[in-house]
Amino acid sequence: MKDHDTAPVFRELDVDECRRLLAEGVIGRVGFNGPDGPVVLPVNYTMDGDTVLFRTGFGGPMDDSLDTGAAGLEFKIAFEVDHIDTAAREGWSVLVQGAAHRVTSEDELAAARDAAVEPWAGGERALHIRVVPTRITGRRVRGS
Amino acid sequence: MKDHDTAPVFRELDVDECRRLLAEGVIGRVGFNGPDGPVVLPVNYTMDGDTVLFRTGFGGPMDDSLDTGAAGLEFKIAFEVDHIDTAAREGWSVLVQGAAHRVTSEDELAAARDAAVEPWAGGERALHIRVVPTRITGRRVRGS
Repeated sequence: MKDHDTAPVFRELDVDECRRLLAEGVIGRVGFNGPDGPVVLPVNYTMDGDTVLFRTGFGGPMDDSLDTGAAGLEFKIAFEVDHIDTAAREGWSVLVQGAAHRVTSEDELAAARDAAVEPWAGGERALHIRVVPTRITGRRVRGS
Repeated sequence: MKDHDTAPVFRELDVDECRRLLAEGVIGRVGFNGPDGPVVLPVNYTMDGDTVLFRTGFGGPMDDSLDTGAAGLEFKIAFEVDHIDTAAREGWSVLVQGAAHRVTSEDELAAARDAAVEPWAGGERALHIRVVPTRITGRRVRGS
Protein backbone atom coordinates (compact mmCIF):
# COMPACT_ATOMS: atom_id res chain seq x y z
CA MET A 1 0.00 0.00 0.00
CA LYS A 2 2.99 2.32 -0.20
CA ASP A 3 3.47 5.03 -2.77
CA HIS A 4 -0.20 5.89 -3.05
CA ASP A 5 0.24 9.56 -3.59
CA THR A 6 -3.17 10.05 -5.13
CA ALA A 7 -5.60 11.52 -2.67
CA PRO A 8 -8.75 9.54 -1.91
CA VAL A 9 -11.99 11.08 -3.09
CA PHE A 10 -13.91 12.38 -0.12
CA ARG A 11 -17.52 13.46 0.12
CA GLU A 12 -20.01 14.37 2.82
CA LEU A 13 -23.10 12.19 3.21
CA ASP A 14 -26.49 13.83 3.57
CA VAL A 15 -28.53 13.18 6.68
CA ASP A 16 -30.93 10.75 4.96
CA GLU A 17 -28.05 8.60 3.82
CA CYS A 18 -26.61 8.75 7.33
CA ARG A 19 -29.93 7.59 8.81
CA ARG A 20 -30.16 4.74 6.33
CA LEU A 21 -26.65 3.57 7.24
CA LEU A 22 -27.41 3.90 10.95
CA ALA A 23 -30.55 1.78 10.53
CA GLU A 24 -28.58 -1.03 8.90
CA GLY A 25 -25.88 -1.27 11.54
CA VAL A 26 -25.46 -3.47 14.58
CA ILE A 27 -22.16 -2.37 16.11
CA GLY A 28 -21.12 1.19 16.76
CA ARG A 29 -18.66 2.99 18.99
CA VAL A 30 -19.49 5.47 21.69
CA GLY A 31 -17.15 8.29 22.61
CA PHE A 32 -17.40 10.31 25.77
CA ASN A 33 -15.29 12.01 28.37
CA GLY A 34 -14.21 9.75 31.20
CA PRO A 35 -12.06 10.54 34.21
CA ASP A 36 -8.86 9.88 32.21
CA GLY A 37 -9.89 11.79 29.10
CA PRO A 38 -11.79 10.72 26.00
CA VAL A 39 -13.00 7.11 25.87
CA VAL A 40 -14.11 5.10 22.82
CA LEU A 41 -15.80 1.72 23.25
CA PRO A 42 -17.75 -0.58 20.92
CA VAL A 43 -21.42 -1.21 21.61
CA ASN A 44 -24.19 -3.20 20.08
CA TYR A 45 -27.01 -0.83 19.23
CA THR A 46 -30.37 -0.40 17.62
CA MET A 47 -32.20 2.63 16.30
CA ASP A 48 -35.47 3.58 17.93
CA GLY A 49 -36.91 6.20 15.63
CA ASP A 50 -34.27 8.88 15.41
CA THR A 51 -32.57 7.88 18.64
CA VAL A 52 -29.78 5.40 19.28
CA LEU A 53 -30.33 2.74 21.96
CA PHE A 54 -27.49 0.74 23.45
CA ARG A 55 -26.79 -1.23 26.57
CA THR A 56 -23.54 -1.18 28.36
CA GLY A 57 -21.78 -1.87 31.57
CA PHE A 58 -18.81 0.44 31.35
CA GLY A 59 -18.65 0.46 35.08
CA GLY A 60 -18.07 3.81 36.60
CA PRO A 61 -17.14 6.39 33.97
CA MET A 62 -20.29 6.61 31.91
CA ASP A 63 -22.64 5.94 34.77
CA ASP A 64 -21.00 8.59 36.92
CA SER A 65 -20.85 11.07 34.08
CA LEU A 66 -24.54 10.57 33.39
CA ASP A 67 -25.26 11.71 36.92
CA THR A 68 -24.01 15.10 35.82
CA GLY A 69 -26.81 15.02 33.30
CA ALA A 70 -29.29 14.23 36.04
CA ALA A 71 -28.25 17.47 37.70
CA GLY A 72 -29.52 19.38 34.68
CA LEU A 73 -26.46 19.40 32.43
CA GLU A 74 -26.50 17.41 29.23
CA PHE A 75 -23.99 14.60 28.95
CA LYS A 76 -22.64 14.94 25.44
CA ILE A 77 -21.69 11.78 23.64
CA ALA A 78 -20.50 10.67 20.23
CA PHE A 79 -21.85 7.57 18.52
CA GLU A 80 -20.12 6.35 15.38
CA VAL A 81 -20.69 3.59 12.83
CA ASP A 82 -18.46 2.82 9.89
CA HIS A 83 -17.54 0.34 7.24
CA ILE A 84 -14.01 0.34 5.85
CA ASP A 85 -12.73 -1.81 3.01
CA THR A 86 -8.99 -1.62 3.34
CA ALA A 87 -8.32 -3.57 0.13
CA ALA A 88 -10.44 -1.23 -1.96
CA ARG A 89 -9.20 1.77 0.03
CA GLU A 90 -12.73 2.97 0.56
CA GLY A 91 -15.20 3.32 3.35
CA TRP A 92 -17.76 5.45 5.10
CA SER A 93 -18.50 6.62 8.61
CA VAL A 94 -21.46 8.27 10.29
CA LEU A 95 -21.16 10.34 13.43
CA VAL A 96 -24.06 11.08 15.75
CA GLN A 97 -23.49 13.77 18.34
CA GLY A 98 -26.03 14.32 21.04
CA ALA A 99 -27.05 13.93 24.62
CA ALA A 100 -27.04 10.57 26.40
CA HIS A 101 -29.85 9.66 28.77
CA ARG A 102 -30.41 6.66 30.98
CA VAL A 103 -33.43 4.62 29.94
CA THR A 104 -35.33 4.17 33.15
CA SER A 105 -39.05 3.82 32.53
CA GLU A 106 -40.39 0.26 32.49
CA ASP A 107 -41.93 0.75 29.04
CA GLU A 108 -38.72 2.01 27.56
CA LEU A 109 -36.69 -0.75 29.19
CA ALA A 110 -39.06 -3.36 27.80
CA ALA A 111 -38.72 -1.85 24.32
CA ALA A 112 -34.95 -1.84 24.63
CA ARG A 113 -34.95 -5.47 25.69
CA ASP A 114 -37.23 -6.37 22.79
CA ALA A 115 -34.79 -4.66 20.47
CA ALA A 116 -32.27 -7.21 21.69
CA VAL A 117 -29.59 -4.69 22.38
CA GLU A 118 -26.77 -6.93 23.48
CA PRO A 119 -23.95 -5.54 25.53
CA TRP A 120 -20.41 -5.80 24.26
CA ALA A 121 -18.47 -3.12 25.91
CA GLY A 122 -18.56 -4.53 29.30
CA GLY A 123 -19.63 -6.74 32.02
CA GLU A 124 -22.93 -7.86 33.26
CA ARG A 125 -24.55 -4.61 34.18
CA ALA A 126 -27.50 -3.54 32.10
CA LEU A 127 -27.31 0.19 31.79
CA HIS A 128 -29.57 1.18 28.90
CA ILE A 129 -28.66 4.44 27.20
CA ARG A 130 -30.53 6.51 24.66
CA VAL A 131 -28.71 9.06 22.52
CA VAL A 132 -30.87 11.90 21.23
CA PRO A 133 -29.03 13.27 18.19
CA THR A 134 -28.41 16.96 17.83
CA ARG A 135 -26.09 16.51 14.85
CA ILE A 136 -25.67 13.70 12.32
CA THR A 137 -22.82 13.85 9.82
CA GLY A 138 -21.23 11.33 7.51
CA ARG A 139 -18.43 10.97 5.06
CA ARG A 140 -17.45 8.54 2.36
CA VAL A 141 -13.95 7.98 1.03
CA ARG A 142 -13.31 6.19 -2.24
CA GLY A 143 -9.91 5.04 -3.39
CA SER A 144 -8.70 6.85 -6.46
CA MET B 1 -30.73 -12.71 18.74
CA LYS B 2 -33.59 -12.18 21.15
CA ASP B 3 -34.02 -13.93 24.43
CA HIS B 4 -30.34 -14.23 25.20
CA ASP B 5 -30.62 -13.76 28.90
CA THR B 6 -27.27 -15.29 29.68
CA ALA B 7 -24.62 -12.69 30.36
CA PRO B 8 -21.57 -12.66 28.11
CA VAL B 9 -18.29 -13.58 29.75
CA PHE B 10 -16.15 -10.51 30.11
CA ARG B 11 -12.48 -10.22 30.91
CA GLU B 12 -9.82 -7.54 30.93
CA LEU B 13 -6.86 -7.93 28.59
CA ASP B 14 -3.36 -7.36 29.91
CA VAL B 15 -1.22 -4.68 28.31
CA ASP B 16 0.94 -7.13 26.34
CA GLU B 17 -2.14 -8.62 24.72
CA CYS B 18 -3.39 -5.10 23.99
CA ARG B 19 -0.09 -4.20 22.31
CA ARG B 20 -0.17 -7.37 20.23
CA LEU B 21 -3.69 -6.59 19.04
CA LEU B 22 -2.74 -2.97 18.31
CA ALA B 23 0.25 -4.14 16.24
CA GLU B 24 -1.99 -6.33 14.07
CA GLY B 25 -4.57 -3.68 13.26
CA VAL B 26 -4.96 -1.33 10.35
CA ILE B 27 -8.11 0.65 11.15
CA GLY B 28 -8.88 2.31 14.47
CA ARG B 29 -11.11 5.08 15.71
CA VAL B 30 -9.98 8.28 17.34
CA GLY B 31 -12.08 10.07 19.92
CA PHE B 32 -11.54 13.64 20.99
CA ASN B 33 -13.40 16.73 22.03
CA GLY B 34 -14.49 18.92 19.16
CA PRO B 35 -16.43 22.17 19.23
CA ASP B 36 -19.76 20.27 19.27
CA GLY B 37 -18.77 17.71 21.90
CA PRO B 38 -17.10 14.33 21.61
CA VAL B 39 -16.13 13.16 18.10
CA VAL B 40 -15.32 9.63 16.92
CA LEU B 41 -13.83 9.03 13.48
CA PRO B 42 -12.14 6.06 11.82
CA VAL B 43 -8.49 6.31 10.84
CA ASN B 44 -5.94 4.13 9.19
CA TYR B 45 -3.02 3.76 11.57
CA THR B 46 0.28 2.11 12.24
CA MET B 47 2.22 1.52 15.43
CA ASP B 48 5.63 3.12 15.74
CA GLY B 49 7.10 1.51 18.80
CA ASP B 50 4.64 2.20 21.57
CA THR B 51 3.05 5.14 19.82
CA VAL B 52 0.14 5.28 17.39
CA LEU B 53 0.65 7.11 14.10
CA PHE B 54 -2.22 8.20 11.90
CA ARG B 55 -2.91 10.71 9.19
CA THR B 56 -6.04 12.70 8.90
CA GLY B 57 -7.69 15.74 7.49
CA PHE B 58 -10.52 16.33 9.91
CA GLY B 59 -10.54 19.94 8.96
CA GLY B 60 -10.79 22.34 11.82
CA PRO B 61 -11.64 20.53 15.05
CA MET B 62 -8.59 18.38 15.65
CA ASP B 63 -6.16 20.78 14.10
CA ASP B 64 -7.49 23.67 16.15
CA SER B 65 -7.60 21.61 19.31
CA LEU B 66 -4.00 20.57 18.83
CA ASP B 67 -3.04 24.20 18.92
CA THR B 68 -4.11 24.15 22.54
CA GLY B 69 -1.42 21.51 22.97
CA ALA B 70 1.11 23.78 21.35
CA ALA B 71 0.38 26.29 24.08
CA GLY B 72 1.60 23.79 26.65
CA LEU B 73 -1.56 21.87 27.45
CA GLU B 74 -1.82 18.24 26.43
CA PHE B 75 -4.52 17.41 23.93
CA LYS B 76 -6.02 14.20 25.27
CA ILE B 77 -7.27 11.69 22.77
CA ALA B 78 -8.70 8.20 22.67
CA PHE B 79 -7.65 5.65 20.10
CA GLU B 80 -9.61 2.41 19.84
CA VAL B 81 -9.35 -0.80 17.84
CA ASP B 82 -11.77 -3.69 18.02
CA HIS B 83 -12.98 -6.85 16.38
CA ILE B 84 -16.55 -7.96 16.93
CA ASP B 85 -18.09 -11.18 15.68
CA THR B 86 -21.81 -10.58 15.97
CA ALA B 87 -22.74 -14.14 14.99
CA ALA B 88 -20.58 -15.68 17.70
CA ARG B 89 -21.53 -12.90 20.11
CA GLU B 90 -17.90 -12.28 20.95
CA GLY B 91 -15.28 -9.65 20.41
CA TRP B 92 -12.51 -7.56 21.85
CA SER B 93 -11.55 -3.93 22.02
CA VAL B 94 -8.40 -2.06 22.99
CA LEU B 95 -8.42 1.53 24.15
CA VAL B 96 -5.36 3.77 24.10
CA GLN B 97 -5.63 7.01 26.01
CA GLY B 98 -2.92 9.59 25.69
CA ALA B 99 -1.75 12.86 24.30
CA ALA B 100 -1.89 13.67 20.60
CA HIS B 101 0.96 15.53 18.93
CA ARG B 102 1.45 16.81 15.43
CA VAL B 103 4.27 15.07 13.61
CA THR B 104 6.31 17.90 12.21
CA SER B 105 9.95 16.97 11.84
CA GLU B 106 11.06 15.87 8.38
CA ASP B 107 12.47 12.60 9.73
CA GLU B 108 9.24 11.73 11.48
CA LEU B 109 7.15 12.69 8.47
CA ALA B 110 9.27 10.49 6.24
CA ALA B 111 8.85 7.58 8.65
CA ALA B 112 5.10 8.12 8.77
CA ARG B 113 4.93 8.17 4.98
CA ASP B 114 7.00 4.99 4.80
CA ALA B 115 4.57 3.37 7.19
CA ALA B 116 1.93 4.00 4.53
CA VAL B 117 -0.52 5.59 6.88
CA GLU B 118 -3.43 6.25 4.57
CA PRO B 119 -6.04 8.79 5.48
CA TRP B 120 -9.66 7.72 5.79
CA ALA B 121 -11.29 10.14 8.06
CA GLY B 122 -11.17 13.06 5.84
CA GLY B 123 -10.17 14.97 2.86
CA GLU B 124 -6.90 15.66 1.25
CA ARG B 125 -5.02 17.29 4.06
CA ALA B 126 -2.08 15.40 5.45
CA LEU B 127 -2.01 16.09 9.14
CA HIS B 128 0.16 13.42 10.76
CA ILE B 129 -0.64 12.71 14.39
CA ARG B 130 1.23 10.70 16.97
CA VAL B 131 -0.52 9.44 20.09
CA VAL B 132 1.75 8.82 23.06
CA PRO B 133 -0.14 6.39 25.31
CA THR B 134 -0.53 7.04 28.98
CA ARG B 135 -3.02 4.23 29.46
CA ILE B 136 -3.74 1.07 27.45
CA THR B 137 -6.69 -1.11 28.41
CA GLY B 138 -8.55 -3.91 26.70
CA ARG B 139 -11.51 -6.18 27.15
CA ARG B 140 -12.75 -9.35 25.59
CA VAL B 141 -16.34 -10.58 25.59
CA ARG B 142 -17.24 -14.15 24.76
CA GLY B 143 -20.75 -15.35 24.12
CA SER B 144 -21.97 -17.73 26.75
